[in-house]
Amino acid sequence: MCTVLLRMSTLFLRTLRDDPADAEVASHRLLARAGYIRRAAPGGFTWLPLGFRVFRNVERIIREEMDAMGAQEVHFPSLLPKEPYEATGRWTEYGDNLFRLKDRRGVDHLLGPTHEEMFTLLVKDLYSSYKDLPLSLYQIQTKFRDEARPRAGLLRGREFTMKDSYSFDVDDAGLDKSYAAHRDAYIKIFDRLGLEYAIVSAMSGAMGGSRSEEFLHPTAIGEDTFVRSPGGYAANVEAVTTVVPDAVPLEGLPEAHVEDTPDTPTIESLVAVARQLFPDAGYTAESTLKNVVVTLVHPDGTREPLVIGLPGNREVDAKRLEAQVAPAEVEPFTEFDKHPALVKGYIGPQVLGSESESGIRYLVDPRVVTGTRWITGANQPGKHVFDLVAGRDFTWDGVIEAAEVLAGDPAPDGSGPLELARGVEMGHIFQLGRKYAEALDLKVLDENGKLVTVTMGSYGIGVSRAVAAIAESTHDELGLVWPREVAPADVHVVATGKDAAIFEAAEALAAELVGQGLTVLYDDRPKVSPGVKFKDAELLGMPTIVTVGRGLAEGVLELRDRRTGEREEIPVDGAAARVLSAVRG
Amino acid sequence: MCTVLLRMSTLFLRTLRDDPADAEVASHRLLARAGYIRRAAPGGFTWLPLGFRVFRNVERIIREEMDAMGAQEVHFPSLLPKEPYEATGRWTEYGDNLFRLKDRRGVDHLLGPTHEEMFTLLVKDLYSSYKDLPLSLYQIQTKFRDEARPRAGLLRGREFTMKDSYSFDVDDAGLDKSYAAHRDAYIKIFDRLGLEYAIVSAMSGAMGGSRSEEFLHPTAIGEDTFVRSPGGYAANVEAVTTVVPDAVPLEGLPEAHVEDTPDTPTIESLVAVARQLFPDAGYTAESTLKNVVVTLVHPDGTREPLVIGLPGNREVDAKRLEAQVAPAEVEPFTEFDKHPALVKGYIGPQVLGSESESGIRYLVDPRVVTGTRWITGANQPGKHVFDLVAGRDFTWDGVIEAAEVLAGDPAPDGSGPLELARGVEMGHIFQLGRKYAEALDLKVLDENGKLVTVTMGSYGIGVSRAVAAIAESTHDELGLVWPREVAPADVHVVATGKDAAIFEAAEALAAELVGQGLTVLYDDRPKVSPGVKFKDAELLGMPTIVTVGRGLAEGVLELRDRRTGEREEIPVDGAAARVLSAVRG
Repeated sequence: MCTVLLRMSTLFLRTLRDDPADAEVASHRLLARAGYIRRAAPGGFTWLPLGFRVFRNVERIIREEMDAMGAQEVHFPSLLPKEPYEATGRWTEYGDNLFRLKDRRGVDHLLGPTHEEMFTLLVKDLYSSYKDLPLSLYQIQTKFRDEARPRAGLLRGREFTMKDSYSFDVDDAGLDKSYAAHRDAYIKIFDRLGLEYAIVSAMSGAMGGSRSEEFLHPTAIGEDTFVRSPGGYAANVEAVTTVVPDAVPLEGLPEAHVEDTPDTPTIESLVAVARQLFPDAGYTAESTLKNVVVTLVHPDGTREPLVIGLPGNREVDAKRLEAQVAPAEVEPFTEFDKHPALVKGYIGPQVLGSESESGIRYLVDPRVVTGTRWITGANQPGKHVFDLVAGRDFTWDGVIEAAEVLAGDPAPDGSGPLELARGVEMGHIFQLGRKYAEALDLKVLDENGKLVTVTMGSYGIGVSRAVAAIAESTHDELGLVWPREVAPADVHVVATGKDAAIFEAAEALAAELVGQGLTVLYDDRPKVSPGVKFKDAELLGMPTIVTVGRGLAEGVLELRDRRTGEREEIPVDGAAARVLSAVRG
Repeated sequence: MCTVLLRMSTLFLRTLRDDPADAEVASHRLLARAGYIRRAAPGGFTWLPLGFRVFRNVERIIREEMDAMGAQEVHFPSLLPKEPYEATGRWTEYGDNLFRLKDRRGVDHLLGPTHEEMFTLLVKDLYSSYKDLPLSLYQIQTKFRDEARPRAGLLRGREFTMKDSYSFDVDDAGLDKSYAAHRDAYIKIFDRLGLEYAIVSAMSGAMGGSRSEEFLHPTAIGEDTFVRSPGGYAANVEAVTTVVPDAVPLEGLPEAHVEDTPDTPTIESLVAVARQLFPDAGYTAESTLKNVVVTLVHPDGTREPLVIGLPGNREVDAKRLEAQVAPAEVEPFTEFDKHPALVKGYIGPQVLGSESESGIRYLVDPRVVTGTRWITGANQPGKHVFDLVAGRDFTWDGVIEAAEVLAGDPAPDGSGPLELARGVEMGHIFQLGRKYAEALDLKVLDENGKLVTVTMGSYGIGVSRAVAAIAESTHDELGLVWPREVAPADVHVVATGKDAAIFEAAEALAAELVGQGLTVLYDDRPKVSPGVKFKDAELLGMPTIVTVGRGLAEGVLELRDRRTGEREEIPVDGAAARVLSAVRG
């Protein structure tokens, strides 16, 4: 990037005293107040000059690291034909999140949410042999998603910039290598961006595939919940697997018995009644088997009731459930009148299962293993059954990881109890496998002249989101605090007072620093008070601030580190050299 | 841009032997064959690695010159709300050219064709005083237009990259200055891009405003016709004004007389009959007054017949007519049955005019001045009227510049006869005036504390189109020939043969050149014949080609200039220095 002198007297910038009404998070609030971004549409932001400089710095870092790992940059259109997305099913699977439109001839198009299909077709178009692989391509491009609730400024918009890359390999070992290379590049990128991150195992969700990790930036305002253990395990909640208890021998277990349990609409009230009935049994919520009914809406529109059985101390986690049943969607179940087997509040597994009379599919939490005993619904109002034994008194159609993860649950790898944290997804690396290559028929000839389907990876980084995350994680109560490598300018030179000599000295210093290759933001506004200038400097957040003011008469300037707040008086003579060493460390 | 070594063995590149079926022009053909671009959708292209490097070089040059003139870079979304475009009328005026879509809530949006409205609102949002002005903002951004016929590859796409800038001034003198600054910057940009251009006066068209010039790149495949005179006049045909002849005194002119003129469906046949009737009159096509009927479709949907009277030697020029009647659109007239006054083939002005019984609006070419005598329709089948005198025998509602411009017509500024040429519009600079500021209420306080409406300019350069135009104008029969400043690499090093020593020497040379700051395309493909490598080098078009081949045994390499074709043997020792001096001139 060219080195430049940005004069605040002419810079297109207005700092605002008040927070924008719609700003929910600090990054949005501060980026708007500091004149870095401005809302242009719901979920759409305009980059103002300082903001666009940060954006381009982030983009440059990503580009450098992608190039360094050997990925090659291309650039696709955003307006895409429907057909490839129909071939993979994503035209419908994306649901309302996809922006669809028709051209003047009535032909269907979409605005690209990601470009798996297009990259697959491009490689199919140009390549045909295993000798052409491995290949990694990337683009830094505008994406569109019709989010239900665009929020948190740049963190979740409807139009945003993403670096998306795709790897193409002839076999699984190749994919593992490409995946590892991207993982390493991502580590370098986030390290350079100064962003703390956790690499968490992730479910594949709607994308379909195998290994997948997310780079989550831990922050209380994050939309994603993830877990980590003292031993280093980290995963998206969708990806956490339950530690399955051993099965219990069925011999000698007591018989099931039905009891009157009136007025037990909640697990809590049920446990209270159970304790009254059997004071010595030590019943807790974990002793109960809760059966939750939902409606699955399949991509073809068919609706299916599904019952999930899980220990009563846990809720169904919507994200975990959605990840398990995708591409089907989950809706609340309301049609009790159509399914008399389901007695609201008293559903028990005895009447469930696709082999049962009701035909309703029944999936259970992994903790429901053969020989476990449960208090659960007796399929009659006001009655529960006790000592109902799994594998003896009831069966299930399968196991589902849909129960919420609780703090203290054991990590699946034995590395200790899990802690829950929140984060923002900054990057996602993903072994797609052969899903897209199969759907779009991307094959190459292998060493033996045989056609084989290519295996792919897809890898994304939110570029605009990274700007927000950096702002979010580095700001303080006074304003933004940019890490050096992404700051819109290296130095902020502030001239205070009315003395012409001050402005001359500040101007000379700024020019000298620019001559040395720095980008300088120079507050040359003639009629603005020192107080306002200092406040603006704090808000704008350049890493180094030099004030040329009253001290000039005694031959000194003030050098300040925005992050630490440390101040130092430096002599005018040789000031540029001192500033340079502060900037360049 | 980082300096890099691009190895052809791994570069995502396939040169094609055959022209793409849909390529109409050389730039499209060669850019596709050389693996710079690939069609992804109708009117939408993917930049492949080499192409994207050219694109980014062009973008960099534009950015540098815009920054140098003091314009400030911002970046807007593409997906925009309808309301601002409704306020200015462009939501409907753009017609089918605008991509419109609805979001999941059914709210109307558009994909930005240009951003006048959004920039106006942004400045309104942040600025309020004359002290804030002048201001020039720009962006380099993806634009969308639903072209009826996307064609010529990158020259006219539906999705393309534009640099659009906007100036904001408090008065007309300020606008003139901002306009001149953009004009100078554009001259620098096109000079650096190595693109020949003519700066032509242009009509404002649908944009509404005053002064306007286009930077046209003269080329036979251009869609725009423009005119130039030996004395330096140049204009878009839409902008050419007719040199109006002097009025003729009415006294002593002969009376009009109707004659039988059967079988005269064309001007040619009419002139032949007229000459038979009056052999001495010297009648030509210019003696006749042709009355052409069209239907105007106004933005509110109302349809109006309009008759245009013009000398019979000229056709109506569709573009000139459209520019005059915009935002109304022109359709062929077919409703003769509804308008009995219009006798097909024999329409005469006596029954026309909004004051006439027919009420049909009648506009005439500027050459139809008072006292001119015409042969024209007598409003009866098979009859024409002769010596019908303008201003005596008929009147008109107004004058219209809709007749075609013919080679040899006088330039309006007296600088000689016009010549017709074709060109591609590379840039457009435009004094918008107060149209947008008024529609969106952008006012600032002037020196006297009075609110004044801001005056604006808008300025565009087609970035992707510039790449195509450069390819179009610099290519030769062998392939692309890039100017140094936009070439994807400075040097193409070609290793030929099978000798390991050759590849080692080529590798060492490439590394040395990269070390010196050059970008090197290195043909390191082990099993490709010299003939194919040379052909590829010609097709790909790096400005300097160094071949490391058989000569190496004698200690020489071949240095070739792609443009001139000059070849030179250079010693291996000191080869890098020699190549550097060739590259850096």
